[in-house]
Amino acid sequence: MKNYEKRYEILRGMLEEEGINVDEVEKKLKNFRIETPSWGYGDSGTRFAVFKQKGSARNIKEKLQDAAIVHKLTGICPTVALHIPWDMYDDWDELLKYAESLGVKPGAINPNLFQDDDYKLGSLTHPDKRVREKAIKHILDCIEIAKKLGSRDISLWLADGTNHPGQDDFRFRKHRLEESLKEVYSHLEPDMRLLIEYKFFEPAFYHTDIPDWGTAIILSKKLGDKAYVLVDLGHHPLGTNIEQIVAILLDEGKLGGFHFNNKKYADDDLTTGSINPYELFLIFNELVSAEQDGLKMDIAYMIDESHNLKNKIEEMIQSVENIFRTYAKALIVNRKALRRYQEEQDIVMAENTLVKAFETDVMPLIYKVREEIGVPLDPLKAFRESGYMEKVIKERG
Amino acid sequence: MKNYEKRYEILRGMLEEEGINVDEVEKKLKNFRIETPSWGYGDSGTRFAVFKQKGSARNIKEKLQDAAIVHKLTGICPTVALHIPWDMYDDWDELLKYAESLGVKPGAINPNLFQDDDYKLGSLTHPDKRVREKAIKHILDCIEIAKKLGSRDISLWLADGTNHPGQDDFRFRKHRLEESLKEVYSHLEPDMRLLIEYKFFEPAFYHTDIPDWGTAIILSKKLGDKAYVLVDLGHHPLGTNIEQIVAILLDEGKLGGFHFNNKKYADDDLTTGSINPYELFLIFNELVSAEQDGLKMDIAYMIDESHNLKNKIEEMIQSVENIFRTYAKALIVNRKALRRYQEEQDIVMAENTLVKAFETDVMPLIYKVREEIGVPLDPLKAFRESGYMEKVIKERG
Amino acid sequence: MKNYEKRYEILRGMLEEEGINVDEVEKKLKNFRIETPSWGYGDSGTRFAVFKQKGSARNIKEKLQDAAIVHKLTGICPTVALHIPWDMYDDWDELLKYAESLGVKPGAINPNLFQDDDYKLGSLTHPDKRVREKAIKHILDCIEIAKKLGSRDISLWLADGTNHPGQDDFRFRKHRLEESLKEVYSHLEPDMRLLIEYKFFEPAFYHTDIPDWGTAIILSKKLGDKAYVLVDLGHHPLGTNIEQIVAILLDEGKLGGFHFNNKKYADDDLTTGSINPYELFLIFNELVSAEQDGLKMDIAYMIDESHNLKNKIEEMIQSVENIFRTYAKALIVNRKALRRYQEEQDIVMAENTLVKAFETDVMPLIYKVREEIGVPLDPLKAFRESGYMEKVIKERG
Amino acid sequence: MKNYEKRYEILRGMLEEEGINVDEVEKKLKNFRIETPSWGYGDSGTRFAVFKQKGSARNIKEKLQDAAIVHKLTGICPTVALHIPWDMYDDWDELLKYAESLGVKPGAINPNLFQDDDYKLGSLTHPDKRVREKAIKHILDCIEIAKKLGSRDISLWLADGTNHPGQDDFRFRKHRLEESLKEVYSHLEPDMRLLIEYKFFEPAFYHTDIPDWGTAIILSKKLGDKAYVLVDLGHHPLGTNIEQIVAILLDEGKLGGFHFNNKKYADDDLTTGSINPYELFLIFNELVSAEQDGLKMDIAYMIDESHNLKNKIEEMIQSVENIFRTYAKALIVNRKALRRYQEEQDIVMAENTLVKAFETDVMPLIYKVREEIGVPLDPLKAFRESGYMEKVIKERG
Repeated sequence: MKNYEKRYEILRGMLEEEGINVDEVEKKLKNFRIETPSWGYGDSGTRFAVFKQKGSARNIKEKLQDAAIVHKLTGICPTVALHIPWDMYDDWDELLKYAESLGVKPGAINPNLFQDDDYKLGSLTHPDKRVREKAIKHILDCIEIAKKLGSRDISLWLADGTNHPGQDDFRFRKHRLEESLKEVYSHLEPDMRLLIEYKFFEPAFYHTDIPDWGTAIILSKKLGDKAYVLVDLGHHPLGTNIEQIVAILLDEGKLGGFHFNNKKYADDDLTTGSINPYELFLIFNELVSAEQDGLKMDIAYMIDESHNLKNKIEEMIQSVENIFRTYAKALIVNRKALRRYQEEQDIVMAENTLVKAFETDVMPLIYKVREEIGVPLDPLKAFRESGYMEKVIKERG
Repeated sequence: MKNYEKRYEILRGMLEEEGINVDEVEKKLKNFRIETPSWGYGDSGTRFAVFKQKGSARNIKEKLQDAAIVHKLTGICPTVALHIPWDMYDDWDELLKYAESLGVKPGAINPNLFQDDDYKLGSLTHPDKRVREKAIKHILDCIEIAKKLGSRDISLWLADGTNHPGQDDFRFRKHRLEESLKEVYSHLEPDMRLLIEYKFFEPAFYHTDIPDWGTAIILSKKLGDKAYVLVDLGHHPLGTNIEQIVAILLDEGKLGGFHFNNKKYADDDLTTGSINPYELFLIFNELVSAEQDGLKMDIAYMIDESHNLKNKIEEMIQSVENIFRTYAKALIVNRKALRRYQEEQDIVMAENTLVKAFETDVMPLIYKVREEIGVPLDPLKAFRESGYMEKVIKERG
Repeated sequence: MKNYEKRYEILRGMLEEEGINVDEVEKKLKNFRIETPSWGYGDSGTRFAVFKQKGSARNIKEKLQDAAIVHKLTGICPTVALHIPWDMYDDWDELLKYAESLGVKPGAINPNLFQDDDYKLGSLTHPDKRVREKAIKHILDCIEIAKKLGSRDISLWLADGTNHPGQDDFRFRKHRLEESLKEVYSHLEPDMRLLIEYKFFEPAFYHTDIPDWGTAIILSKKLGDKAYVLVDLGHHPLGTNIEQIVAILLDEGKLGGFHFNNKKYADDDLTTGSINPYELFLIFNELVSAEQDGLKMDIAYMIDESHNLKNKIEEMIQSVENIFRTYAKALIVNRKALRRYQEEQDIVMAENTLVKAFETDVMPLIYKVREEIGVPLDPLKAFRESGYMEKVIKERG
Repeated sequence: MKNYEKRYEILRGMLEEEGINVDEVEKKLKNFRIETPSWGYGDSGTRFAVFKQKGSARNIKEKLQDAAIVHKLTGICPTVALHIPWDMYDDWDELLKYAESLGVKPGAINPNLFQDDDYKLGSLTHPDKRVREKAIKHILDCIEIAKKLGSRDISLWLADGTNHPGQDDFRFRKHRLEESLKEVYSHLEPDMRLLIEYKFFEPAFYHTDIPDWGTAIILSKKLGDKAYVLVDLGHHPLGTNIEQIVAILLDEGKLGGFHFNNKKYADDDLTTGSINPYELFLIFNELVSAEQDGLKMDIAYMIDESHNLKNKIEEMIQSVENIFRTYAKALIVNRKALRRYQEEQDIVMAENTLVKAFETDVMPLIYKVREEIGVPLDPLKAFRESGYMEKVIKERG
């Protein structure tokens, strides 16, 4: 890291030779924002065990503190996604002020429709109208909270599904889902958005009511312009070409946001970019490409991870680091060359154009940006040296 | 089989006790139709080898002969899907008469957009306009053939896709695809249908332009009322809940037909129902359920298999047998009980209601139907005893 | 069910015509035993929620009660697998007597090496020797319990693995595992067995220390004649041919037992036979075939399910029912015909020989056996009518 | 590339600061060898189409020419794997001299046991002894060819398997396989090796006789010290942790070699490192780690790709490039730090140690090595500028 300036000059020279506007790249990097999830700072686990970590956040205020240190050290994580009722609080005004005092503010509101015993057989799709109404009511409460907190997005993940063939009727559940969502949608403020998440399986193991992006986009199209699809990177069958789904959703004007993480097998919620960093690059490649082609881009970049082995704050910093570095790589793709090679059907050089950007060590660019926005060059090291963890362990007992 | 009457009486009694209208079931069975594919009667193989079989059909007339014997022995396979240009013929009128003389007629027309060297990088999505126009022209030719042969459905499977990240632009290919399909669609006769097939992967190994039902339904909705989705049972990621996709497509009014086969790993094109017969049953369960709920059902049931180990005609008979038996099982599901259990949230009994139908030995019903429509009780045995294979081996050399 | 005798006579006649010794089949059915798991009777769930059921067992005595009713109604489930420390008890002699008073007895002992905070990074493979010794000590304790309870099998599932590339060294962990197992093995009594389970993934999401049968058999061969492989049907990658693994393990003399359940996606722990009943049949087909070929068969048939939607006892009865029916189907495969067709390379008839047995309605045979061993013909119905659930809900509060 | 010296100096300085012996790394890179496959230079395709490329090699001599240009431009590909009978030649002495005149020599010999009609139901496992003997004879012929050509390794991939449940008996096939391999093994010269490849599926779609590394290692252990396992990167279920398999095989002393390629879905045979380059890095990380720990390393690094979209020679150069770059990254992992972090259970820093090496731009190191061994810095560019392709298109017509 020391003397990165020399590396920066060389890199800048190489990029400019390729016609990349490095100032523009740095500007984009400075404007990039990643939202971290409140639930990523508390204890979590698998169905087999939840391992307690010393000093992990126990309530929304502590979660905001942890998110704030991540933002302070990275400079690009000013918002925090909330999960209701996990993050329920008596006085939202006070909480908002508390967040602001820490330098962060609430982001997307995530209704929880899977923990109450009533939701055992579903929430918005439940066979019993009473339960559906309860679930709708909960989302409407979340919309109210969003209004109070100035949050724009309602992030909707449904655990709804069945475990056993015959347990319920697919079409009837679909009708109930559409009806419930319509009711919810009608309560959105004009500038609010409903982000509809899909998931291949888990916790339902025979069918999931919104199993894929196809179902989610059909729902969002039926609802209207305020409904979008939310892509969680861990919610696809193995092998799925996620970057293509991203491109399709962008082209259909229905990509609302991401839940970033990485998977090796199922919804493993591992560190973003830690299993296949090239896939993450190819996803960002689509995003940058679409933006440069002038598509409307209004995308919420959110991390959805909740680790139980690594220190939670360190893990979040690492994920932010991986996403930021990958975005930088996508920004330096020589798009003119790429398009030309594609038009010339020169597959090898088209592919190499992507590989070249991916293989570039973009850290000097990132150091430069960090220096200019006044955050540590190495946020993880800075975190370890800050004494923050020792402090909260003491405070939180 | 002998003395099946006794078993029939017992079965009928048991079904009637449950309130199943057995006459209605038998009527449905008599009206059921499965289309067999011309390409299932010729030699085929894997990328590693094509094993020649003695007596396998070498041209469209021989394929029609083989399809005709399958129909003669099963009574429910009167149409044959054609593949153009594999089944190209000089004089379609003559061919039509020839087919009729054998007791069969042409079914869906399948354009081939993957073998010509021009299609190496795609057909309807190809970067080069000339190739796209060639591909469109080929489909329009197929529409003309369909008109001449009285075929209603154009069955469109595209091999289009890429093998390498960066090879081409997802969104540009999507635009080309939509434009090409619009052109094709505009040439359909009022009563014709375009069935759009999707496939997860192969022969393209990085991305496929229509990888899933979501893409196919979006395309078909943009095109209009004559465009439908075609479900090939082998074209999904492992684990996919296909019966749910069927239910969604039915509910959206966009299920156009099936390509039946079975997979264990990828698009293995194995005997329908031979790897997971219960999955096939659950698919038919959705079909029968939708029909009983009054949904519009206009579905082409087509086999898409092309075996290289089993005798091709026997394989086709076996597949027809499996499909027919499975349909019969779906017809005897006690739907009133199923719905009641679902409403009562009695999961165990709801599931058992399906299991009970699946576990029922419905062969007596099928024997009865076969007897009444005048086909052999055991079509496979009848085929072996017919001397057909020996005859064609001699004739075809 | 009523008048099943008529169906029985017909079935018996059909089977005898094929040369099946029906008396022998019934004898085998009467001797078949399935072990149910204590943990299948208590509350459980996913990482998202555990739904409490009224009346579910809260301790080992209540679990034994529930297992006893399953045995009473099915007649083939006299043993109960225990999980330590979940089923820890002060006075094992007393517990043994209590079990006997209920008509059941303890089966395999399952050490728990995944819940203690110490096991966060592994148990037998943990980088810290202290933790490995603690884990070994726990298994030795389990061996002592097994001795006291007269249990023969120690069923070892390890959750050991890592979540992050680089977290630990594969080879070092392998060495630690081998060393730890050697220590454990040396404490087995002469007639005891160590059953080594493997699992593709979960709860570890980057690597699992025993990910496949290959690893498990290598370990068991290094240990010796008392070590065997345990096959859990849900622990394989999608598509895996489990029946082949069973055949290989049988041939290598290393198949120790099963954990029965069914999966659609991952380790879903669904009702055995509920997703692909034909796969279960093909597995039993290998078992029956091996036995008839004279291979040494000493296999523990154990259910490993823990449902949170269905009533737990009903679910267990349903699973036992599915396994029993499937075993009956495998017993009536015409093996002489199958072998002949295989030798003649008559693939269609070889396959049909299996399909025929699978499609046979064997319930009359099962009713006969149940009648003769004095259990209800329909155990599920009998359970519902028994008032047992109402009773325990009252008792257990 | 120009002025890479400045980048080299910076990189060298950074690596030395971490204690990496850069001279040693460069020495290792200079000694690294990759074998290219003769079949990668001829036309190939999928089951749907084989697209002819202008100038692609039509026979073994032309294939050697193409392999020679790859070696000339990369400096690390001196051997060429042969496929018999595809590469059959009348006069092996002459061919050997021809190869030497081009600067290359034959590598592993690959028997072909899947194309002859006789092998429809298997080769070494075929139910018919005559076919098994023919297959054994073919391998023995290959051993003779290997002797004449000075090849050490027989690379054995079997397409053997079945498509239909019941088609054949798993255990009988296993016995035949063991017997056949024993016969083959007994004819190996003292210094020869038999590399046994496994594959999850394809071209067999119900079961494959050697489906996984577990089966392959059991076979190789039964055979003896000259039998090893060959890992083809495309032959695993999705999600499989291949680097762990590599570590296990290394630890068991049974890793014989690799067939390099990359997959997204099935055995896609895509450019090595083109879908998940990090996975390739993690594999090389195991190899370098094992070597540094003093394990015996005698591993054949072979490419197994056969592309039909890209130019074949360019594709091979690209694959060699990817492998070489990845090996370089594995060589610069700070292993002392990695081990320390692992011992300290510092997961974040252990992972980051790998990530750091992976993210390093190692091209300056590679340019340095290339300069010193006298090959072009950019082999692909050099190939395009060489006029080679234009020449062979003219020559080969």
